[in-house]
Amino acid sequence: MVTHPAGGIQQIPGREDDPDLPYTAEIISVGTELLLGEIVDTNAAFLSRCFADLGVDVYHRSTVGDNRVRLGAALRQALGRSDIVTLSGGLGPTEDDLTREVVAEVTGRPIVLHPRAMEYIEAYFQRTGRTMSANNRRQALFPDGAEALLNGVGTAPGVWLEHEGKLIICLPGPPVELEPMMRESVIPRLRERIKQVDRSVLHTRVLRFVGIPESVLAEMLADLIASQTDPTLAIYAGQGEVRLRLATRAESAEEAEARFRPIEEDVAARAGEHLYGRDDDSLPGVLGRLLLERGATLATAESCTGGLIAHQITEIPGCSRWFRGGVVAYHNDVKAGVVNVPDHLLEEHGAVSRPVAEALAQGVRERLQATFGIGVTGIAGPDGGSDEKPVGTVYIAWAGPGRLDVERFCFRVGRTVFKQRTAKTALDGLRRRLLQGWGQGE
Amino acid sequence: MVTHPAGGIQQIPGREDDPDLPYTAEIISVGTELLLGEIVDTNAAFLSRCFADLGVDVYHRSTVGDNRVRLGAALRQALGRSDIVTLSGGLGPTEDDLTREVVAEVTGRPIVLHPRAMEYIEAYFQRTGRTMSANNRRQALFPDGAEALLNGVGTAPGVWLEHEGKLIICLPGPPVELEPMMRESVIPRLRERIKQVDRSVLHTRVLRFVGIPESVLAEMLADLIASQTDPTLAIYAGQGEVRLRLATRAESAEEAEARFRPIEEDVAARAGEHLYGRDDDSLPGVLGRLLLERGATLATAESCTGGLIAHQITEIPGCSRWFRGGVVAYHNDVKAGVVNVPDHLLEEHGAVSRPVAEALAQGVRERLQATFGIGVTGIAGPDGGSDEKPVGTVYIAWAGPGRLDVERFCFRVGRTVFKQRTAKTALDGLRRRLLQGWGQGE
Repeated sequence: MVTHPAGGIQQIPGREDDPDLPYTAEIISVGTELLLGEIVDTNAAFLSRCFADLGVDVYHRSTVGDNRVRLGAALRQALGRSDIVTLSGGLGPTEDDLTREVVAEVTGRPIVLHPRAMEYIEAYFQRTGRTMSANNRRQALFPDGAEALLNGVGTAPGVWLEHEGKLIICLPGPPVELEPMMRESVIPRLRERIKQVDRSVLHTRVLRFVGIPESVLAEMLADLIASQTDPTLAIYAGQGEVRLRLATRAESAEEAEARFRPIEEDVAARAGEHLYGRDDDSLPGVLGRLLLERGATLATAESCTGGLIAHQITEIPGCSRWFRGGVVAYHNDVKAGVVNVPDHLLEEHGAVSRPVAEALAQGVRERLQATFGIGVTGIAGPDGGSDEKPVGTVYIAWAGPGRLDVERFCFRVGRTVFKQRTAKTALDGLRRRLLQGWGQGE
Repeated sequence: MVTHPAGGIQQIPGREDDPDLPYTAEIISVGTELLLGEIVDTNAAFLSRCFADLGVDVYHRSTVGDNRVRLGAALRQALGRSDIVTLSGGLGPTEDDLTREVVAEVTGRPIVLHPRAMEYIEAYFQRTGRTMSANNRRQALFPDGAEALLNGVGTAPGVWLEHEGKLIICLPGPPVELEPMMRESVIPRLRERIKQVDRSVLHTRVLRFVGIPESVLAEMLADLIASQTDPTLAIYAGQGEVRLRLATRAESAEEAEARFRPIEEDVAARAGEHLYGRDDDSLPGVLGRLLLERGATLATAESCTGGLIAHQITEIPGCSRWFRGGVVAYHNDVKAGVVNVPDHLLEEHGAVSRPVAEALAQGVRERLQATFGIGVTGIAGPDGGSDEKPVGTVYIAWAGPGRLDVERFCFRVGRTVFKQRTAKTALDGLRRRLLQGWGQGE
């Protein structure tokens, strides 16, 4: 469960129009490189998460380039509708870096050399043994009345400016500088500020589903969603899964938990094994836990997914406790020579077939001495399909103690998505089988 | 070479104030999950890159939640200042999905059942063998006068609406659906549309570099960039590589080519092997071409990258002609038992060591009967580091006819980025060695 002090809930109908609820924040990302798509804006997501954790609502984010007029207009609009405006980027030492100047302009304040900011910059150069260049001095030119925020990683100090009941926070663009500044300087101050206004706390719970489309889950939970009051419920989809978010304001974690529990149990009963986890869980992570509980291990033999399943598994820290390894059996020689798929199966049934998937799962399980083996063979396309086995056809097999299962699927979705769907289905297939008791007590 | 009819170039100074240049685009990302920071908005960056490639300027991006009022306000503002407005997200089947309705509301058009959209949705369910639920019908409710864009991957058709001289394009939120729809349906139409406004044609050439920081390449090409007139030059960075974009307006492809050639030759001479490809090339694709030219094949033995290298290779259609397969040798037993890494090397030097990387590359090459083998072993973290071999240490080895090379690197960048950098370095290392003549005439 994630706990947010104060603030409101994005999704409670009418919440946004309640004048008693204190804070809204807005995020402006500054930089022409963002508008060219040269970099993905991870700062906006990071700042959004920080505000969600603080219980502060974010209703708008925007991005503008290194342009005085458009940055000024974006800032004016944000100050007109939000209590806290956070700007990231544009604090560098060059002429392109306009954020400090534009904040001064919009708030009608003179630009002054900020002694504390200058100290921070000088200390940075002393600490790193680098030589300060003349234009780094620009980075200490602040709107009059602002405070400087320490940058432990780079040269640009942050800006904290209270202005006519609003709060403007300017942060450096590089995530390695922005994130610690936010965590160490900004969040503690914001928490203090919010406490003075509202002591209530927002709690959330995210439930994660796989193998069920958003629309089917929404129908399954239609009455719960229609009658929601507290906790509120919202469904999201993306990245091959569906999520249900529960949110409530409560005095304590126990009180929130007591409200979540009956809904969670109800949803679990309806969704069955589609519900795979909660909060920060991931599918390979959950599978790993199930394997660890059984003292079991896994090995993979992938043809058409080409290593993607193993790659997803090895994104999980500590997976070496339950993942033995895998074989990317792309060429038939590798299927036969490394995973011991009998040649006659390849000849009689073809590489994309039920018996070959079974032999891959069973072969890799034995070869790599794992409790369970996953075998995958299919046609990712664009070529290689036939009438009987069109592009998108895939056989997935699961081998383990006393049993060997195989299923046929068809994902006609293009090579890249085909690989993703197949990987998800293969991992989820083993998860479900383990839940049904496979490998338990063995 | 990519040919773009008309448009402007983001990076020509003063271009944005030239009233003769036709198009500006604006991007609105829709979804409460974005404002909560639950997902990073990669769509905005992808769409920005698409428009940059088309020569269409993007000056504003914004993000709003699943909220009728705020989405409507964002769309009105965008239509007031930009020619093309692209919305991503909010095309799902649930009540939260408001994009179609809000577009109808803002443009004053009735909502009607779109027969072609309905066909697309029904075809999707037929193709995937899934059962259509009642609320998927909502996804065919379109603003009157709009066209439907085929979604090859999911249920939500896209929306293309010409309205009072402006163009509104609605795309599904999941990147796996948005990206192919943009590439296959939207970009070709935009190209046509731009041609009608301005018959002069913008031609571009993108040169791709690896293993060189943006700032170093910029210095290397400083005089070319400073003196640019026609073609114009612009450097972009992102996703582990650097790109140089040449652009010129010309009557024909031949004319453009004649202008690009001397610059391209000059740049190639300066950047040497850092220049790996052009236009739509990718690193594994280029490597595959070099191997095919030599009639050579490749096999991989991955420890810390966990299958990522094989996964990236198998994203390339037709890679089965040169990729034999790989082993994910996560556990030491697999290194020894499957790839034949001698036990004494693992004991004496540890799994993360020069001799083990060499044995992996050589072992997988022999075991999978490939011309070349890549072996990778390292410490992805967060745990497992020591003073001598900190987290981020990795050994990469390349084995081939008559030679065995190994290099040590240290990428202290977190588990996920570590895997990505290591994979790129491993593929690039073989590419450079092949260019230097390895495996030629054998």
